[in-house]
Amino acid sequence: MSDLASKAAENLRKIRATKPLIHNITNFVVMNMTANVLLATGASPVMAHAENEVEDMVAFAGALVLNIGTLTDTWLASMLKAGRKASETGTPIILDPVGAGVTGLRTAAAKNILASTRVSVVRGNASEILSLCDQKAAGKGVDAIHSVDDAEIAAGQLARSLQTTLAITGPVDLVTDGSRSARIANGHALMPVVTGTGCSATAVIGAFLAVDADPVSAAATALAFFGIAGEEAGTTAKGPGSFLVHLLDALYTLSPEKVADRCRISLR
Amino acid sequence: MSDLASKAAENLRKIRATKPLIHNITNFVVMNMTANVLLATGASPVMAHAENEVEDMVAFAGALVLNIGTLTDTWLASMLKAGRKASETGTPIILDPVGAGVTGLRTAAAKNILASTRVSVVRGNASEILSLCDQKAAGKGVDAIHSVDDAEIAAGQLARSLQTTLAITGPVDLVTDGSRSARIANGHALMPVVTGTGCSATAVIGAFLAVDADPVSAAATALAFFGIAGEEAGTTAKGPGSFLVHLLDALYTLSPEKVADRCRISLR
Amino acid sequence: MSDLASKAAENLRKIRATKPLIHNITNFVVMNMTANVLLATGASPVMAHAENEVEDMVAFAGALVLNIGTLTDTWLASMLKAGRKASETGTPIILDPVGAGVTGLRTAAAKNILASTRVSVVRGNASEILSLCDQKAAGKGVDAIHSVDDAEIAAGQLARSLQTTLAITGPVDLVTDGSRSARIANGHALMPVVTGTGCSATAVIGAFLAVDADPVSAAATALAFFGIAGEEAGTTAKGPGSFLVHLLDALYTLSPEKVADRCRISLR
Repeated sequence: MSDLASKAAENLRKIRATKPLIHNITNFVVMNMTANVLLATGASPVMAHAENEVEDMVAFAGALVLNIGTLTDTWLASMLKAGRKASETGTPIILDPVGAGVTGLRTAAAKNILASTRVSVVRGNASEILSLCDQKAAGKGVDAIHSVDDAEIAAGQLARSLQTTLAITGPVDLVTDGSRSARIANGHALMPVVTGTGCSATAVIGAFLAVDADPVSAAATALAFFGIAGEEAGTTAKGPGSFLVHLLDALYTLSPEKVADRCRISLR
Repeated sequence: MSDLASKAAENLRKIRATKPLIHNITNFVVMNMTANVLLATGASPVMAHAENEVEDMVAFAGALVLNIGTLTDTWLASMLKAGRKASETGTPIILDPVGAGVTGLRTAAAKNILASTRVSVVRGNASEILSLCDQKAAGKGVDAIHSVDDAEIAAGQLARSLQTTLAITGPVDLVTDGSRSARIANGHALMPVVTGTGCSATAVIGAFLAVDADPVSAAATALAFFGIAGEEAGTTAKGPGSFLVHLLDALYTLSPEKVADRCRISLR
Repeated sequence: MSDLASKAAENLRKIRATKPLIHNITNFVVMNMTANVLLATGASPVMAHAENEVEDMVAFAGALVLNIGTLTDTWLASMLKAGRKASETGTPIILDPVGAGVTGLRTAAAKNILASTRVSVVRGNASEILSLCDQKAAGKGVDAIHSVDDAEIAAGQLARSLQTTLAITGPVDLVTDGSRSARIANGHALMPVVTGTGCSATAVIGAFLAVDADPVSAAATALAFFGIAGEEAGTTAKGPGSFLVHLLDALYTLSPEKVADRCRISLR
């Protein structure tokens, strides 16, 4: 069993013991699922986005989750305000740049949040993460990415340039801060057929960051845990509807020992 | 069978026969679940929050549910407008002060709604309800609460001071208007692991208030009904995901006779 | 097998092969379910409503779904902006006039969208659709509707007057553009007990419009497909909670052949 496998178990135990408050400013599509995923994991979710409330709320939080799906300028202003407060108090921030690279609003917002706040982890798919890249600064550019290894090198460069940890999810997840990187091979093919699984993975990373100060370890163990729950759900699911039901059940019932046992994290 | 047990059955029959329209101005996290819970119960949910629409909508409603989760000033303005209209027309209002006591925005909003509108029932957990209390007016204050009986006395004082009925939910629920009180021992341990069960209980009280003019009786029978559905769901649930599915099924399939039979309401 | 039955299978195959992006500006209650229904069907949902983003987003879309539940003036402005852009680019628009006829805001908004954009299909229940009718223009008026055949004649007149295709859902669905009409007899009694089934049917019509340029054929085959999934879900559902789970599973697992086989569309 690798060190990160036992760390996954330890982090899960800490979350269930301490029930950290996770403050989410997230999109309308996934709010309900995100809250249910965090509750099933053992954390305490709260959603609050009013500009005259977010600083008060984040003061109680173990982590702040910023998710730019269904974004507007008003919501962005609240995210920046909450993020600046969290940066001051040392509360870990995790950014989900939903749709970055698709519209100018989303790309600019993700870059603005990264520039204005101290983001511990960015979780997105490859195209969202690549959109955060100023190609000149990132060296060889997107055109040079022809393999998983190329992607890992490019992600490492981007992580160093942004001074954050990147969690790029897909069939195999990649977590890197530019000096250390981990690949996580847990997960299930039905995950992308349920809306909000990516956003929920982001929120679970938030819960793990609330109990684990190392962003690489927190993100990798969170993604392994979430992926294992997906694998468990996939054994009996008959489609995306029953998969979601079983996923919530698995997040709640998985023992730390089983999580450690099934972790497929390789550290590099 | 107590009087309130047969009243629970009668209220449920009336809801299913008349399908009262329940107007919800509620938070983003629970809107979908609230609508599904009300539909499964037999009521007709509508969600509408535009300041230039709420008066028109509440005119058709059998009850108005105000829930301050994910609140902003704009939404509060709409709640106050809808609440004033409902107060004029005698439409029962039920308030869910989600997060009151946690942030100034929420505490002030809950007090503002209570002061500006005629609220029939406030449903919250103990800390949310206690945050509505002006300690000087409430006599002995929070520090003096050392037992369930103390809590019942304090709740009664607060109910009289606010001139409303309080429904305080927890392992055992308490409903009091300051002169009569009821304890409801129905429910299931998985309820707090699913987001929106409290908010849904509030909405169900709204449906019961639409057919039962007595706030104590409406709130107590609604909480018993919702708790019994939770018990039914808990018999086969494997975690919070399947619990939610079975809860909606149970709300829809529970017969009035079974509800009356399983009610655990004690009136004082 | 009718032509439309084989068309239903063909449309479903095309959606699963091409995964068209469906841009939804819809209400808070159904966003999550709508996204899950579109994913299970095989399409790619996106929700985006910021006035400074909707034109960029709709440029990528195969169809634009406008749904006026939980409407405000701000959201209406975004719908109009997105709708005008879609009208310019020839992207099909489908309108769900949730609550039209209930409040002035909703009725006026639905009429405004119809007047300002090129709507391919309007999907609603009978009372919502009738509220779009300027009685003087529609001839005999609502009072003259005494049978399904009368309704079909009135709907045809209204469709011609609005120069769009109407999809009126109920126990039997009716689709008409004023010259051709289809009745669809698929569906299940639990559908109205789950919130968002109507709105989801609208979104599924959007997915079918993205691969089928004929609004009558797209709407009729989409409603048949969605109704067949409901029938499949209904065979094992124990109530609205399990019905919703099985509905998503069925949308994902139904084969085009089975859809063609079970289609109950009669063209007139």
